Amino acid sequence: MSGKDTVRPYKKGADYSYTLGAFPTIELLKSRPEIAEKIYVHSTFSIPEVLEDICRKNRISVITADRIIEKLSDKENIYVVGVFRKYTDILQRDSSHLVLVKPSNMGNMGTIMRTCIGFGIKDLAIISPGTDVFNPKVIRSSMGALFRIRHQYFDSFEEYLDAVKEREIFLFMLTGKRQQTVLQCEKPERFSLVFGNEATGLPAEYEDYGTSIIIPQSQEVDSLNLTIAVGVGTFLFTHGVQG
Amino acid sequence: MSGKDTVRPYKKGADYSYTLGAFPTIELLKSRPEIAEKIYVHSTFSIPEVLEDICRKNRISVITADRIIEKLSDKENIYVVGVFRKYTDILQRDSSHLVLVKPSNMGNMGTIMRTCIGFGIKDLAIISPGTDVFNPKVIRSSMGALFRIRHQYFDSFEEYLDAVKEREIFLFMLTGKRQQTVLQCEKPERFSLVFGNEATGLPAEYEDYGTSIIIPQSQEVDSLNLTIAVGVGTFLFTHGVQG
Repeated sequence: MSGKDTVRPYKKGADYSYTLGAFPTIELLKSRPEIAEKIYVHSTFSIPEVLEDICRKNRISVITADRIIEKLSDKENIYVVGVFRKYTDILQRDSSHLVLVKPSNMGNMGTIMRTCIGFGIKDLAIISPGTDVFNPKVIRSSMGALFRIRHQYFDSFEEYLDAVKEREIFLFMLTGKRQQTVLQCEKPERFSLVFGNEATGLPAEYEDYGTSIIIPQSQEVDSLNLTIAVGVGTFLFTHGVQG
Repeated sequence: MSGKDTVRPYKKGADYSYTLGAFPTIELLKSRPEIAEKIYVHSTFSIPEVLEDICRKNRISVITADRIIEKLSDKENIYVVGVFRKYTDILQRDSSHLVLVKPSNMGNMGTIMRTCIGFGIKDLAIISPGTDVFNPKVIRSSMGALFRIRHQYFDSFEEYLDAVKEREIFLFMLTGKRQQTVLQCEKPERFSLVFGNEATGLPAEYEDYGTSIIIPQSQEVDSLNLTIAVGVGTFLFTHGVQG
């Protein structure tokens, strides 16, 4: 950051970002205290003891700064802001993954991270271009789950496949050479669940990479919301449900 | 509406509302043409023939009105707006229902409607106070599924129970006298799935109404997003999945 206590609105190119609100800031301090730079608190906010301890142990300054918080909080009621250095993760090669191809909605990205962690998937691949996971809106919508998931961007699906151990690939799309419903298909121990962009879905050429999976749904809706499809798919695969 | 072509921003107390965008407007015209008052289109938009037919048959005026659309669209790129009279639904007494207790988020409400219709639940009970389903933001987020679902507000859960046929009640909450996981529990033919407010969940006194249902989730997240819980619960119940 440029000066000691000057803050600027978040920018994609910056090497730091913010957690807005108590919940994501707590998650930052619990999961990745080593990247936390400092914590700003509003003068009306009393910081929980457990957080004070973490900050003391990790030499993270806690600064009362009402104006800085007001500047960053963008009209929402926020009383704590964390400043942290961005970081790079490497996916675990042999675990099951969620793969998002060109995701574009920040709220969805956060909800999907929270859902993955809730259902036990700890690795998230993003095929570029995709939402910037460090945007404070993503972090807030993830309720801090960003700090518990490993994420990695790849330029192409091939690059992703090269980087990870062999696995079964399940493509959530309505067409395909090998099609199964999300209930019928066998759930292997190691898998990747692949979902397309909110508006366009997965491109047809993805059919070649694995088994196309359909979530049965009424003709009365055009499609399911991406987060709902991820929630249902992830739950059934991580619980090995077959019916 | 007051004058022929004066429009006002949506208000909860008004007896009409708007569909913003092509998708929800098409759903309005397909599902409930009888409540449509008129359609505003931007001069750059060419209205699909199927919609023109519906409008002609139902004597719905189609008016080119760029300034009205700009006024209502609230910075989003919108080229069609429908004006419709609000209506009252009565739930089908003997079908399965989704029940939302004091829901407060407009985006969630829309996503939940779309999810219900996608998975075959056509009746939505709302225990007041709850989000106004006619708010254009709800309609947009539902992608018009509002017009395909029956919805009804009730002042209390007792009032809801009095109005519908006897059924098994499943309460999505973490405590309860009779607890089961969403996978284990038997799925009867007629059921009501009950979900609490986004921030507070279901009040403890709901335990008495039926079986508490837990969606297994990691200790690493505080809770699932409401829409995800509804998505997973609704899918498993409508597909009779037991594992």
